[in-house]
Amino acid sequence: MAASVTPPRGMRDFLPAEKAVREHALGVIRDVYAAHGFDEIETPVMEDSSRLHAGLGGDNEKLAFAVMRRGLTAEDLERAAEGVDALSLADLGLRYDLTVPLARFYATHRAALPPVFRSIQIAPVWRAERPQKGRYRQFVQCDIDIIGEAGHLAELELLTATVATLDALGLGGCVIRLNDRRILAGILDSWAVPPEVRERALITIDKLDKIGPAGVAAELRELGVEPTDASTGLSTDVAAELEALANADWHLADGIVPPPAWLDLDAFAALRELRDALPDAAIEFDPTLVRGMGYYTGTIFEVAHPNLDYSLGGGGRYDGMIGRFLGQDVPACGFSIGFERIVDLLEMRHDAKPRAVVLVYDAETPPATLLAVKGELVASGTRVRLERRTKNLRALLDRVTADGFDAFAPITAETTDAASLAFRDLGV
Amino acid sequence: MAASVTPPRGMRDFLPAEKAVREHALGVIRDVYAAHGFDEIETPVMEDSSRLHAGLGGDNEKLAFAVMRRGLTAEDLERAAEGVDALSLADLGLRYDLTVPLARFYATHRAALPPVFRSIQIAPVWRAERPQKGRYRQFVQCDIDIIGEAGHLAELELLTATVATLDALGLGGCVIRLNDRRILAGILDSWAVPPEVRERALITIDKLDKIGPAGVAAELRELGVEPTDASTGLSTDVAAELEALANADWHLADGIVPPPAWLDLDAFAALRELRDALPDAAIEFDPTLVRGMGYYTGTIFEVAHPNLDYSLGGGGRYDGMIGRFLGQDVPACGFSIGFERIVDLLEMRHDAKPRAVVLVYDAETPPATLLAVKGELVASGTRVRLERRTKNLRALLDRVTADGFDAFAPITAETTDAASLAFRDLGV
Repeated sequence: MAASVTPPRGMRDFLPAEKAVREHALGVIRDVYAAHGFDEIETPVMEDSSRLHAGLGGDNEKLAFAVMRRGLTAEDLERAAEGVDALSLADLGLRYDLTVPLARFYATHRAALPPVFRSIQIAPVWRAERPQKGRYRQFVQCDIDIIGEAGHLAELELLTATVATLDALGLGGCVIRLNDRRILAGILDSWAVPPEVRERALITIDKLDKIGPAGVAAELRELGVEPTDASTGLSTDVAAELEALANADWHLADGIVPPPAWLDLDAFAALRELRDALPDAAIEFDPTLVRGMGYYTGTIFEVAHPNLDYSLGGGGRYDGMIGRFLGQDVPACGFSIGFERIVDLLEMRHDAKPRAVVLVYDAETPPATLLAVKGELVASGTRVRLERRTKNLRALLDRVTADGFDAFAPITAETTDAASLAFRDLGV
Repeated sequence: MAASVTPPRGMRDFLPAEKAVREHALGVIRDVYAAHGFDEIETPVMEDSSRLHAGLGGDNEKLAFAVMRRGLTAEDLERAAEGVDALSLADLGLRYDLTVPLARFYATHRAALPPVFRSIQIAPVWRAERPQKGRYRQFVQCDIDIIGEAGHLAELELLTATVATLDALGLGGCVIRLNDRRILAGILDSWAVPPEVRERALITIDKLDKIGPAGVAAELRELGVEPTDASTGLSTDVAAELEALANADWHLADGIVPPPAWLDLDAFAALRELRDALPDAAIEFDPTLVRGMGYYTGTIFEVAHPNLDYSLGGGGRYDGMIGRFLGQDVPACGFSIGFERIVDLLEMRHDAKPRAVVLVYDAETPPATLLAVKGELVASGTRVRLERRTKNLRALLDRVTADGFDAFAPITAETTDAASLAFRDLGV
C-alpha cells in the first residue's frame, strides 16, 4: 500500500504555506467584491449530467468528469455495453465551469433574487484535460456576474470591481483590453467568411498571440476559408491585416478617423462610452480580442498586467445564455479572474498575518502550564505552536522559521505565565 | 428545458444570506484554529478509487460517489457487464470523509511537515445517502487532527481549540463528554461479548440515545449476543446496566470509589488527567459514549451544548490509521466539528458586517457619477449596491432591507460626491 500515495493525476494537494496564500487571496477577493455590491452564492459541485451536456459548455463538455449512477444493475451495464454508451451509466457530473451552474441556479431561485443580481462564485471546477504545466484537472474559478442589467452599467461595475480587487491583491497598474463581438463580426464580414465556419474562425483568431498572424491565416485556409475582400471580391492578405489590426495604435478617446469599413460603429461608440465612464482606468481597444467561449454576444474584455505575458482574467456580455434553463432571454455580463494564475504571483504579505510564536517545552513542563500560557497568548491575538524540545534546537528553530513563525521562547516547569517568557526573534 | 431546475437530489444551493453566514462561520473557525497553532491544508475532492475502498472508511465506503474513467472502450463496458462490476469502470471517487485523504496526504508529504503536525481541513464531502431532513449528499466537514503526538497533549490541544472556536461562534457553555475505547472494551468484557461481534455491539450501544437501554439490549440479542456476567457466568440484565451507566453521576474529579469491576483503571486515570489539565472546561465522563467509527483506539470525546439534544462535534484517538498508507504506525487524534449543525444555529452577527448602503439612481444619473460616488463610499469601507429606481419605491426598499442593507440615498444628475447624498436608514 505504501507504493503510490500521490494525489490523482493532474490534481494538487496544498501544504500549509500554499493554502495560507490561497485563503488570503480568496479573503481579499471576497471582501472587495462584496464591498462593490456583489453577493456570494454556492451551488453543489455536481449537476445533472443532462444539464452539463446541454450545449452551453462548448468544448468543456467533453472534459466533464462523469459520476456513475448508484445501484447500477446487470441490465444497465449490458445496455451500456451494447450501445457502447458509457455516459448512460452517469446521472451526474462534476461542473467544468461556473456559468452552467449559475444559469441553473438563476432558473431555480430567480424569484428570491433582486431584479439586477450581482453574483460572486468562488469555487473549484474540474476538467479531464491532459495535465501540463500550469494546467490542472481541479482548479478554482472566481466569477462575478451581473444578471438582469441590459445597459453598460453592468460592464462598468464588473470592470471597476475587478480593477479594485487586483489593486487590493497588490497587482495595481493593470490594463483593460476591450472589444465587441459585433466588431469581430464586422472583420469576418469584410473577409466574406461564410456563416458555417465563423465560430471556428473566431477560435482560430483567438490563437493570434500564440501562433501569430501567419499561423492564423494558415489555419483559416485549412478551415477551407478563402478570405476575400467583401467589397472588391479579391483575395485578402489576412496575415497582413491581422498584423495591422493587432499593432495599430487605436485611440478610443479620440475615435478613429476615418473609421475602417469593417468597424461596427455602434459597437465602437459603446466602447468609447465605457472608456469615458472610467477615466482613471488604463483602457485599450483591441479588435483582435476574441475570448474563447461561443456564448458571448457583445462587449468582451480582458485584464492584463504590463509585466506579464498572459491575461489575469476576462469576460464579456452573454445575453443569450443565463435564461436558457428558464426558456427566456435574460441579459448577463460576467468576469472571471484567473485565480490560479494570480495566486502564483502572490506572496503572503507579512503585515496580513498575526504574530506567530513557538513555545518550546520539555518533558517536565506540566500540560496545564502549556495550555494556560498558550491560552493567554492566543487571547492576546498571537498564533501559538507548541514544539517539544529536541536535541538539535538549531534544526527545530530553522524549521519553525521556515514555517513563518516570528519568535520562540522556552517554557518550563518554572514558567508561571506569558509575561515570564523570554522571547527571542526567529530568522533575524 | 424549463421543467426541472433543482440542484441534484440531496444537494443544496446557498443563497447570498445563507452563504454569508457560512463564510462568516468558516472565517471564525479558521482564525481560532490557526491561532491555536493548527495549519490548514487542502486535498483534491477526488481520491483514487482503490484508496477510498481500502477499508478505512467503514460503512461510508458504500456511500462513495464513483467517477467514471475517461475514454472507456466497448471492451471495458463488456467486461463490466460480464462481471456485473460497475466499480471496475471507475478510477476515482469523491471523498466521503476527510480522514482517508488526510492519511494519504500525510503519506505523500510527511517529509515536509513538522514532527507533530496539527492540521485543519475545512471542505465538502459527499455521501450517496438516502436524503432526509438535516442529512445531505454534499456537506462540509471541519476537522482538526494532531499527527505524531502520542501523549495527552494532543487531546488537550484539540479540546482547548474546539471550545475556544465554539465560544467565538457564540456557542459558549458547551460540555465535553469523555470516554475511552478501552473502558468500553471493559464493559463488553464484563458481558463476555465474543470478539467477532464486538464491533457491531459498539455500533449498537452508540444508538443508546435513540433506541434506549431496552432497545440496545434487544439489538444485542438479535446480534446473537447473550451477555453473561464474566465472573459469575449468569445472564446479565444489559438494559438495567446500560441505564445505570448512562444515568450515574460520575465524578471525574473525585474518582469512583470503589471502582466497578468493568472499569479500565489506566484509561480512567488518563481521563482524570485530561480533566485536571482543563480546569476551566465543563467535562463529564460518559462510559456509554461510543463515537461511530471503528478506527478509534483510545480517548473519545463529544462536545454538546446544554440547550441542544444533539452533539456539536466529536472525535478521538485513532493511532492505527494515519500510517496505513505509509505502512507504519503513527499516533493521531482528531476532532470534527459538526459544521452543518452549527451553521444552522448561527445568525450573522450584525457587528461583524460592514455598513451596507443602496444608491437609488434614475435614468438621468450619469454612469460616471454612479461609479465615482460608489467608489468613494467603497473606499471608506462601505458595501454599496446600485438599484434603479422603480415606480414602487416602497417595495424596492423592503427588498433591500430584507437583503440586509442599512441605509439608502437617491443619486441623481445633481449629485456631485458622496458627501452630497442624503442617506435615510432602512428598516427602522
